[in-house]
Amino acid sequence: MEFSSKLLENAVYEMSQLPGIGKRTALRLVLHLLKRPTEQTQKLTLALDHLRNDIKFCTNCHNISDVEVCEICASPRRDRSLVCVVEDIRDVMAIENTSQYKGLYHVLGGKISPMEGVGPQDLTIGPLVEKVKKGEIKELIFALSSTMEGDTTNFYIYKQLEGLDVNTSTIARGISVGDELEYADEVTLGRSIVNRIPFENSLKAN
Amino acid sequence: MEFSSKLLENAVYEMSQLPGIGKRTALRLVLHLLKRPTEQTQKLTLALDHLRNDIKFCTNCHNISDVEVCEICASPRRDRSLVCVVEDIRDVMAIENTSQYKGLYHVLGGKISPMEGVGPQDLTIGPLVEKVKKGEIKELIFALSSTMEGDTTNFYIYKQLEGLDVNTSTIARGISVGDELEYADEVTLGRSIVNRIPFENSLKAN
Ligand SMILES: [Zn+2]
Ligand SMILES: [Zn+2]
Repeated sequence: MEFSSKLLENAVYEMSQLPGIGKRTALRLVLHLLKRPTEQTQKLTLALDHLRNDIKFCTNCHNISDVEVCEICASPRRDRSLVCVVEDIRDVMAIENTSQYKGLYHVLGGKISPMEGVGPQDLTIGPLVEKVKKGEIKELIFALSSTMEGDTTNFYIYKQLEGLDVNTSTIARGISVGDELEYADEVTLGRSIVNRIPFENSLKAN
Repeated sequence: MEFSSKLLENAVYEMSQLPGIGKRTALRLVLHLLKRPTEQTQKLTLALDHLRNDIKFCTNCHNISDVEVCEICASPRRDRSLVCVVEDIRDVMAIENTSQYKGLYHVLGGKISPMEGVGPQDLTIGPLVEKVKKGEIKELIFALSSTMEGDTTNFYIYKQLEGLDVNTSTIARGISVGDELEYADEVTLGRSIVNRIPFENSLKAN
């Protein structure tokens, strides 16, 4: 692609660094901004800079939060003995949306993936095990996507918990194997949480 | 969508104002930026702000340019008696890519579309007619997309030129009716320019 303007070329290049945004799409997005009032671009860039610079993660569950301890962890109405382990914030949003779950969360920040160079130390597995050791948690619900990486991560955490007094379960899969949690409909996802099964049983099923 | 962070919600909202970017995609893009070093977000927002604030349009052809008169208009090797009328900069890029065209361009900035509230006064039709009146231009090539809006725009300009000493042509359509110029392959597009037909002939064909 030959550009008539360095400024344009640069903006298109940076936009195309986003996942799933090719050069052509990036050009379309950037030209759209040029047709709109300057304020729209300003609002976008301010919002992104503000988020990236001031982002905080809840010190308890590692969910994205504007405060030290997130709303969910701070709520007296949530069951602190129940912790749902998820990959990322989108899964928290999906489960919250079902209104079926009253425990807390633990956001791993991804799943173990040797292919993508993500090891256990890149995730918040250490803090999770430390939390369990404190003895307040009675049950961990593994709610990772049922992919090979998800299963590997579940199992890795499960082994780390050996000898600790905690029950583990995985969400019941009404949704088909391989599906991403965030794309599941609310009813199915809600039911999966309510009908969770002991993690050991899920191992036998394979 | 319920967000655990106002900063996040705001960034996702602004991102989802871009065309073709829904809330879910916006969230994915924003979370991606959060996983990347701060510099990536900075580069993106700087490039967008820089472009939006410092954008210039060539005073002759209205193409995006970093200087007063764009490289194409300034080139002594281009035929100044030939002007190709296009909707936007992407069409200039597509035609330049064919290496078949040695004239200048005139970028309209869109096409007449009553549905989207775009009238002739929103486009650079006035400056085009003024340019033709100066008498230097021998031929105008209409290279708008062959949609109803494209045809309407062609015809509107054609009527504005009545009584002026200029030939008009439209690019030959090897590419099927309704296709966007920018998605045509180089060979087909190049051939369309070389085999252009007088605009009057295209009217008879309909
Ligand atoms: Zn929290
Ligand atoms: Zn120019």
